[in-house]
Amino acid sequence: MKKEADNFQVRTDLAIEAKNMYVEKENKKEEEIKGVITKERTENDIRIAYVEIDAEGSELVAKKPGTYVTIYADGVKRQDTKRQEDAAKLLAKELEALLKKNKIESDATGLIVGLGNWNVTPDALGPMTIEKVMVTSHLFKLEYETVHDGYRSVAAVTPGVMGVTGIETSNIIHGIIEKFNPDFVIAVDALASRSIERINETIQLSDAGIHPGSGVGNKRKELSKETLGIPVLAIGVPTVVDAVTITSDTIDFILKHFGKEWRDKGRPAQALAPGGFSFGRKKLAEEDMPDAEKRNAFLGMVGNLSDEEKRALIAEVLTPLGHNLMVTPKEVDGFMIDMSHLIANGINAALHENVNIDNFASYSR
Amino acid sequence: MKKEADNFQVRTDLAIEAKNMYVEKENKKEEEIKGVITKERTENDIRIAYVEIDAEGSELVAKKPGTYVTIYADGVKRQDTKRQEDAAKLLAKELEALLKKNKIESDATGLIVGLGNWNVTPDALGPMTIEKVMVTSHLFKLEYETVHDGYRSVAAVTPGVMGVTGIETSNIIHGIIEKFNPDFVIAVDALASRSIERINETIQLSDAGIHPGSGVGNKRKELSKETLGIPVLAIGVPTVVDAVTITSDTIDFILKHFGKEWRDKGRPAQALAPGGFSFGRKKLAEEDMPDAEKRNAFLGMVGNLSDEEKRALIAEVLTPLGHNLMVTPKEVDGFMIDMSHLIANGINAALHENVNIDNFASYSR
Amino acid sequence: MKKEADNFQVRTDLAIEAKNMYVEKENKKEEEIKGVITKERTENDIRIAYVEIDAEGSELVAKKPGTYVTIYADGVKRQDTKRQEDAAKLLAKELEALLKKNKIESDATGLIVGLGNWNVTPDALGPMTIEKVMVTSHLFKLEYETVHDGYRSVAAVTPGVMGVTGIETSNIIHGIIEKFNPDFVIAVDALASRSIERINETIQLSDAGIHPGSGVGNKRKELSKETLGIPVLAIGVPTVVDAVTITSDTIDFILKHFGKEWRDKGRPAQALAPGGFSFGRKKLAEEDMPDAEKRNAFLGMVGNLSDEEKRALIAEVLTPLGHNLMVTPKEVDGFMIDMSHLIANGINAALHENVNIDNFASYSR
Amino acid sequence: MKKEADNFQVRTDLAIEAKNMYVEKENKKEEEIKGVITKERTENDIRIAYVEIDAEGSELVAKKPGTYVTIYADGVKRQDTKRQEDAAKLLAKELEALLKKNKIESDATGLIVGLGNWNVTPDALGPMTIEKVMVTSHLFKLEYETVHDGYRSVAAVTPGVMGVTGIETSNIIHGIIEKFNPDFVIAVDALASRSIERINETIQLSDAGIHPGSGVGNKRKELSKETLGIPVLAIGVPTVVDAVTITSDTIDFILKHFGKEWRDKGRPAQALAPGGFSFGRKKLAEEDMPDAEKRNAFLGMVGNLSDEEKRALIAEVLTPLGHNLMVTPKEVDGFMIDMSHLIANGINAALHENVNIDNFASYSR
Repeated sequence: MKKEADNFQVRTDLAIEAKNMYVEKENKKEEEIKGVITKERTENDIRIAYVEIDAEGSELVAKKPGTYVTIYADGVKRQDTKRQEDAAKLLAKELEALLKKNKIESDATGLIVGLGNWNVTPDALGPMTIEKVMVTSHLFKLEYETVHDGYRSVAAVTPGVMGVTGIETSNIIHGIIEKFNPDFVIAVDALASRSIERINETIQLSDAGIHPGSGVGNKRKELSKETLGIPVLAIGVPTVVDAVTITSDTIDFILKHFGKEWRDKGRPAQALAPGGFSFGRKKLAEEDMPDAEKRNAFLGMVGNLSDEEKRALIAEVLTPLGHNLMVTPKEVDGFMIDMSHLIANGINAALHENVNIDNFASYSR
Repeated sequence: MKKEADNFQVRTDLAIEAKNMYVEKENKKEEEIKGVITKERTENDIRIAYVEIDAEGSELVAKKPGTYVTIYADGVKRQDTKRQEDAAKLLAKELEALLKKNKIESDATGLIVGLGNWNVTPDALGPMTIEKVMVTSHLFKLEYETVHDGYRSVAAVTPGVMGVTGIETSNIIHGIIEKFNPDFVIAVDALASRSIERINETIQLSDAGIHPGSGVGNKRKELSKETLGIPVLAIGVPTVVDAVTITSDTIDFILKHFGKEWRDKGRPAQALAPGGFSFGRKKLAEEDMPDAEKRNAFLGMVGNLSDEEKRALIAEVLTPLGHNLMVTPKEVDGFMIDMSHLIANGINAALHENVNIDNFASYSR
Repeated sequence: MKKEADNFQVRTDLAIEAKNMYVEKENKKEEEIKGVITKERTENDIRIAYVEIDAEGSELVAKKPGTYVTIYADGVKRQDTKRQEDAAKLLAKELEALLKKNKIESDATGLIVGLGNWNVTPDALGPMTIEKVMVTSHLFKLEYETVHDGYRSVAAVTPGVMGVTGIETSNIIHGIIEKFNPDFVIAVDALASRSIERINETIQLSDAGIHPGSGVGNKRKELSKETLGIPVLAIGVPTVVDAVTITSDTIDFILKHFGKEWRDKGRPAQALAPGGFSFGRKKLAEEDMPDAEKRNAFLGMVGNLSDEEKRALIAEVLTPLGHNLMVTPKEVDGFMIDMSHLIANGINAALHENVNIDNFASYSR
Repeated sequence: MKKEADNFQVRTDLAIEAKNMYVEKENKKEEEIKGVITKERTENDIRIAYVEIDAEGSELVAKKPGTYVTIYADGVKRQDTKRQEDAAKLLAKELEALLKKNKIESDATGLIVGLGNWNVTPDALGPMTIEKVMVTSHLFKLEYETVHDGYRSVAAVTPGVMGVTGIETSNIIHGIIEKFNPDFVIAVDALASRSIERINETIQLSDAGIHPGSGVGNKRKELSKETLGIPVLAIGVPTVVDAVTITSDTIDFILKHFGKEWRDKGRPAQALAPGGFSFGRKKLAEEDMPDAEKRNAFLGMVGNLSDEEKRALIAEVLTPLGHNLMVTPKEVDGFMIDMSHLIANGINAALHENVNIDNFASYSR
């Protein structure tokens, strides 16, 4: 799991967030960002966003050039098996497309790397996924005749984290790659989220490489096509969020809530009666945000801070108190089991022609 | 783990919080609460608070009558082995005192009940503690001659949670107690916290009984001296907190932060420069809270809500959005291991004369 | 897991073994045993044996009266997913038949009891099965309207073992049953095998009740229709074997091996050349056993001991040396996962009309 | 865990067994084996054997040249905490001596490699030990000033097994070593035993290098001073045994048992009465083995086979039947926890001056 270097610095692992942050900060329209192309589509009731970043765009949004695909998969959160399967199928499809885009042949040898720490559940997405990924490379080497057509050679490793091994994670991976010589790498990692909504929901797939974060200190070494000479795809899912994000998001929700009530009902905002809201999931939209004057009435000076200023303020308050906790939902154990299952199924189906959307279950325990 | 029935209702599992809430709400001095006696002391750099609640006080603060001991044990959070040991010793001492107060003889038979769900790490405090508790009762029955003096008969069970067993947890416990006939019960459970600061830090020990919460629905059946005819001691540690609490606490911290800056430095509150705070853990105190006018300037209408109103507002906003997450620190796995170890050591030393502060390690794996 | 009280006493948990032992010892034909009826059939390449024991037969073979169904399910051992599914279907079918035979209605409430010790992998069959069993009873009580037709009310508990809880296991179960009042009980337990061949292969299903073994000492209390007033079905699988059994079985195999070689090839038995056996699984049959004279030549006095005498001799030799190990195959972890999955699937399909052979996977994680 | 390539081939991982096998087979006296020096001593009631093998001896006993130290540590088997601590101290002492012998300085950087498969408990000795080993190397690199004197730089990795990663284990290790550049390696692995008595009891320590076994196929690549250019120490403990060994050992015990009875009591061997043996652990000695004539009377032709012939015969019988199980004691989970703890404590104390026999507990959880 990558730890944000600095809470004041506006960093995010998700390209879609980086792009949105840039749009908000610069007050631009999406179409105006040079070198960043965004598309969206919906399939099977699942939303998918594509962000293409070139060298020019890379500097604007501070993300490496490449393709970033974001799948909004709420099946895990909702404990809905059917939606999890649909998301796995979609992940497989998008992963296949990205493999093709990177000119990876159907018989190319892959190395799956499960980043993160086995002993820290919300950071164990990588290792837990590796447990369920089909490994075939040894069969190709040792028992060639027994391997059916429709499978490719795949190996899988869990390099651990520096706090546990004592070794820079990227060194371990580089060492293994030099000996094993795969044609491409897929790295799976848990991410930190900059939004309550994305936890255990957003799957980001990209070909822009990854920096395995070190738990101690902050030196990173990149895994990417530039450093390794082979395509490096990364699959990441936000599993933790910090108290700054929770508070900052909530303050926004409060403002929109008041704005919406004001607009909808002409009802004074201070009416706190439980009767005041409808059950069933409500949605708050950008247009619910009230104007500057009302924001000041509701939340004073804080109500008119930009997102960046608000986060900086909260971090400034919480960090010295030791209260900027990095947290994960209480149900983390079950979420991680389901999400790693989903991702492993997606990878298995994408990598092996013979594994497809109808025989998922047979290939993973 | 007990789930709060209602976010609007001001409930807490901790007597010290209930008392503080009453004091704040009624704007009283502590000494004036009839039927509630509070004391505090510090031993080995660990703070311990005692709250004695009688029938009269019980109605005021909405906690059952009894003795509540709160130990502030930050050794787990800080990963400080020495402080963990000191806290275990203190827990043993306070538990022994409470056993004596309840007239439990040194050869009385005890049943330790580990409440909570094995499969949900932050809810597994009970089961994880049971794993490390010394069980001797079968030896007394079957091999009487091999049991040394200095040990008492102790049994230990993990009844599970209703969502897993399908059976009301209190029914399972009542059934076992009827067959086993212990002289007293010690129940260990994870709690929800109403404060960021208390997570994995506060250990509450009481003789007022406990309601094993059911995960599904909200029917509870009490475990207490009244229902069982034998003393029921409870040991609880907050391991989760909800987004309402995180935001509400943070808003308070922001107000005090501004108040302190205003007072200390004559520096305008809007100065957000990172240089504005000192490294090392800061503390904010009640007197840092600015006056109503400044609170309004900083945080508008929200700045002048009472704690109860503020929590109700945030719950009203977050709950319909599905964002009132119950969360736990990312490091939950390690925290639970250490905390269950600490509590088991405390119980073992309190229950058996021959287990003491100098031979902890030998008795728990 | 039940521990045999005495290695000299010829005890077994499997009715089919008890019957065979009686047949061998008394030198009778199967048809001649009064009160014991044996049948066999094969379905889907899986062999199933039925033993019906009445009061009269009970005394002869030292097993309680009732129906015993033995399924020979080698899919787990062979890691063959398809054969595991077939066996689960068969288990479901036989379990349904036994429920009917015991006049258990399709809406009767069941309690599944997972006997054994979580912390001892080969003894964890019960607890591991419980993890995968569908629990519905709380839904019937609390959310009646949400429960679909086609499901019955089922609860599930893991009472632990006396060495861990300190309480007689049957006391815990009796206590829970008195509070929960199920209409029938299904107990799942790991057994000791008296044969190398049966480990992780034989599933015994019966309605004759069970004695949850205590790890310490040897006092047992029965779970049966007589003691509980409701039908008690038991599902058991041998997961461990002792060194006495391994050696005794091997000595028999050696004798038959020599006998077969002698007969088949006229080849002298002492030819130990590796060329002497064919690859692919060989089978040795009863008729391969050579006559007394040859047995004496091959294995001296030991070659002519009865099975009972041979086991007694080996136990007499190994036990005082501390070498009569109870062992389990090295691959125990994987075996237990697969076998508990198989059994949970069988139970789920048998108990709920809506769960059937085509939607197994969806109902168990 | 290394799998013996061939049951007919007389292979063993333990030098002491290899030496004994050679002595038996060639019917020589120990002193006569050129190039093999054997010593023994006892400390704290623990027996330690030293075998020094040079190039000449290496060919005779089929073990690589080097020093082999065997510690007979029965504390784990007996669940005796005190004896486990004593064994850990002894292991630390012998490991320190071997480090010195290999001219490894007290500030040399070490890499601990935990061989074996996490998911197969009896093969998880390496990974379980790594969990408890002190890792300091990242602290030396990143926070030099916080590292106290008295510690050295240590890293630790668990490369997995080929059946799980798809990559030859030695390739993974070589790759990591090239990047990390340690001064020496310590590899920890579970072994197969050729004797019932040695399971979970014998700890072998050597500087002769190791071949990480591949689970699939049988190609091995060595880890040794020759291949890596740095000293490679190996710590191995037998955790599994096959049915051939159990039966072969038991047949020997039967012969000695008869021999002893014959000699001691003039009592006919066929007396199988339970009264015939004394409780408390008996020992059988080499001199209890009866002469050839009596061996023939007791066990026929099999009674006069050499150890090698006997094992070959049993393997010939069991293997084609699929019954030459590799087994582990039922209590494997607890044994592995204790043994990995013992070894990690030994390693920690040997590698860091500041960790010693009196503060073990503080350094391992």
